[in-house]
Amino acid sequence: MTSMRGSRHMERALAEANAAAQRGEVPVGAVVAAPDGTFLSAAGNRIRELADPTAHAEILAIRAACEAFGSERLLGCDLYVTLEPCAMCAGAISLARIRRLYFGAGDPKGGGVEHGARVFAQATCNHAPEVYGGLDEERTGALLRDFFAARR
Amino acid sequence: MTSMRGSRHMERALAEANAAAQRGEVPVGAVVAAPDGTFLSAAGNRIRELADPTAHAEILAIRAACEAFGSERLLGCDLYVTLEPCAMCAGAISLARIRRLYFGAGDPKGGGVEHGARVFAQATCNHAPEVYGGLDEERTGALLRDFFAARR
Repeated sequence: MTSMRGSRHMERALAEANAAAQRGEVPVGAVVAAPDGTFLSAAGNRIRELADPTAHAEILAIRAACEAFGSERLLGCDLYVTLEPCAMCAGAISLARIRRLYFGAGDPKGGGVEHGARVFAQATCNHAPEVYGGLDEERTGALLRDFFAARR
Repeated sequence: MTSMRGSRHMERALAEANAAAQRGEVPVGAVVAAPDGTFLSAAGNRIRELADPTAHAEILAIRAACEAFGSERLLGCDLYVTLEPCAMCAGAISLARIRRLYFGAGDPKGGGVEHGARVFAQATCNHAPEVYGGLDEERTGALLRDFFAARR
């Protein structure tokens, strides 16, 4: 992250991830920032709580930001997320026209940006955000490792 | 489709797609069927209406079926959709553990099953449904062609 604001957004995403863990959800958090860098929306995973397989942090944050924005396109907006998005979320990020994607730990098993489906790298991908991955990897990765270690 | 019930579900998906076109949405419709083949949920695109880039027919039908089912996993359930799902929807189909995916026209530009991200073909894909594509292609394809032709 290049700005103070950016690192504040990632802090908020980490707080959302921690809150998700408290709810028994896989700890992932996301924040959408407006084109001027101000906060628009934040969410953590709520898959179990809502019994909704699409209730990933990124999807919930994007939907909330669209509601705030009054548009299905978040032109110029940026997404901060603690983990590499999966294929579903990468698809949603493209459809929402997110400008920049900042993410924490890479996810070799479930990721769809630098791994697996590599959604943005496909020739047919209509809109690919600028991607900045592997941010604050020590903390964002530890969050997940601790969560899964505690459940084994 | 091998059964009378299957073709009824695709008829319903086509009706949802037509209704979506009436609302000015890209005409795509989807139906989720329970493990015994009975109807669970149906939806058409509502992207513009809801100002929600994730409001694809498949996502809305899956979310409604999960609500009816009371679970974030639709084990043994089948999805019928008039068009090849995009990467986002293919990801959701995998996360929801859909058993069989039946779709109408293939979508070389936006599809994420047989084209583009090929989500289910990735080694990291945790759950891939059985896929039956290109069903009733004449009608499902014509729906889209007519819709876009009328807007040009």
